[in-house]
Amino acid sequence: MIKNDLFLRALKGETVDRPPVWMMRQAGRYLPEFMALKEKYDFFTRCQTPELASEITVQPIRRYGMDAAILFSDILVIPQAMNIEVEMKPNFGPYLPNPIRSTKDLEKVVVPDVKDSLGYVLAAITQTKEKLEDEIPLIGFAGSPWTILCYCVEGQGSKSFDKARGFCFTQPKAAHELLQKITDTTIAYLKAKVKAGVNAVQVFDSWGGMLSPQDYQEFSWKYIQQIVDALKDEAPVIVFGKGCWFALREMAQSGASAVGVDWTCSPKNARYLTGGNITLQGNFDPARLLSPPPEIKRMVNQMIREFGKDKYVANLGHGILPHIPLENAKAFIDAVKEYKE
Amino acid sequence: MIKNDLFLRALKGETVDRPPVWMMRQAGRYLPEFMALKEKYDFFTRCQTPELASEITVQPIRRYGMDAAILFSDILVIPQAMNIEVEMKPNFGPYLPNPIRSTKDLEKVVVPDVKDSLGYVLAAITQTKEKLEDEIPLIGFAGSPWTILCYCVEGQGSKSFDKARGFCFTQPKAAHELLQKITDTTIAYLKAKVKAGVNAVQVFDSWGGMLSPQDYQEFSWKYIQQIVDALKDEAPVIVFGKGCWFALREMAQSGASAVGVDWTCSPKNARYLTGGNITLQGNFDPARLLSPPPEIKRMVNQMIREFGKDKYVANLGHGILPHIPLENAKAFIDAVKEYKE
Repeated sequence: MIKNDLFLRALKGETVDRPPVWMMRQAGRYLPEFMALKEKYDFFTRCQTPELASEITVQPIRRYGMDAAILFSDILVIPQAMNIEVEMKPNFGPYLPNPIRSTKDLEKVVVPDVKDSLGYVLAAITQTKEKLEDEIPLIGFAGSPWTILCYCVEGQGSKSFDKARGFCFTQPKAAHELLQKITDTTIAYLKAKVKAGVNAVQVFDSWGGMLSPQDYQEFSWKYIQQIVDALKDEAPVIVFGKGCWFALREMAQSGASAVGVDWTCSPKNARYLTGGNITLQGNFDPARLLSPPPEIKRMVNQMIREFGKDKYVANLGHGILPHIPLENAKAFIDAVKEYKE
Repeated sequence: MIKNDLFLRALKGETVDRPPVWMMRQAGRYLPEFMALKEKYDFFTRCQTPELASEITVQPIRRYGMDAAILFSDILVIPQAMNIEVEMKPNFGPYLPNPIRSTKDLEKVVVPDVKDSLGYVLAAITQTKEKLEDEIPLIGFAGSPWTILCYCVEGQGSKSFDKARGFCFTQPKAAHELLQKITDTTIAYLKAKVKAGVNAVQVFDSWGGMLSPQDYQEFSWKYIQQIVDALKDEAPVIVFGKGCWFALREMAQSGASAVGVDWTCSPKNARYLTGGNITLQGNFDPARLLSPPPEIKRMVNQMIREFGKDKYVANLGHGILPHIPLENAKAFIDAVKEYKE
């Protein structure tokens, strides 16, 4: 059904001529066509208007022809649907005016009916699938429960999320209650996304790397595992934890179809730590897209050779930065598409 | 000469009854006696007045009796001495109004005579040694050249130092020139510190973990290695890179006396990655000091058992946080001092 199914075949571990390629945050601020819509519509309008979200999703595909699209949305639509107020402040980022700091704060937090509260995401999927015309697969995503908790407790972005970690370490019972509510919502949300048409899902654990390996198991991984268990028979699942090299083994054995790695883990280490048999995704340093295009192409070729072309999805090691020149992003995508053994 | 030489013996790898203990940033905002001085004197006054710097250095020792003191100072005294303006803005952190962004900006950057420009640090060492009365060793420190470059280029703290990384990737020649100037200054600075009386030195690579392993070698490690080479015959050197698990092998083979590890690397992994034969320092999650004191004591005991009591310096995995209760810091120190096999 999907004409270019390279991405789905790589997730299955099939032999391919070249690896598929997409970029985390590929629908983003480095694109002038994205900036044009950003000028006109605020953040939540873009997320909540299916016409806009689907348009933004396909913008990078039209320009560069990636092998997969990822639905434009935000991980914080989940706490918002759970009755936690979320604002997006210009030049500041997410701001949650009533953060969760106690068991009492938890009372108002609900596990919503996702069809009601997140129906706009499902409608955006329908419209995106129409625009994509089955040319390439569409990825849906969610933040990990731990990463969502970080924002819910801290109330904003942070270098080290000390308040969030402090909440877990001083009030573990309340933390686990919140994590379970987020997990239940996320599972229902991702299942609804698959039903609406996404061909794969990715769980982003952006802040897992702030936890010790032991705390990671307790406060992050066990909830991601619940999500993998619930989703893996419905769609391929990719798990990605930034800074979570220490958990790559569990991730590889979780039932997920692929594991994302960031750029601090060499391809060799990533293959070693994941046992050598699972599809890996990553891991070009997003800041390395500032290098001159010929150097980008050289480094991409080296990256593919080191990961190996099979069981591999070429990607960045985190989201693309806002100020990357267009020709540099193109060099990255083209280098993968032109790859020959 | 030093009455309690447990720390120095651990750096030599000698067998000890219990590991020595100190805490990164132990002279810091969690101490009311530090806050009292902070109210009266601004940041650079505290750094540049030997009477104040030495008093702040010994404050935590009086309260908790750590096995080593670390001179109160800041890594940014180095760029300041190199003719780069550095301000410390309240509730903001370091601010460098004229960041380095080009070869032209580099012209004004000097390798200073450290006895002139950093004489106040050397005087603070003399006064601290007098106050310590040879009870315990004194540690001197410097930031890694890469970490210093991050601030010099970015102009302020950052989650990901994109401007600094972009500078290295687009203007590598200028970056290396700046890194070498910082390295030369740092070597002279640390040698002068040893001559003034510090018993060991630590190099902090706070932002090394933002680089890929390959870029880490090029932009960070090779300069740290120069520092180790220049200092190792004068005093024991500890190298610590936050997030630099991927470089632990090089660090262990560098000639340094000890390698610091952060809390994302389990003791078992740290021993494995460093080859099992070098003294390690770390790695309690600073946010875990928010746990109740009995839990802290249980976790400290587990940490020591996992690292092993020999070739080990008990410490946090990064600096102590400002809002840690006094009794929790005490529980950490006491647990190490009460450790029995």
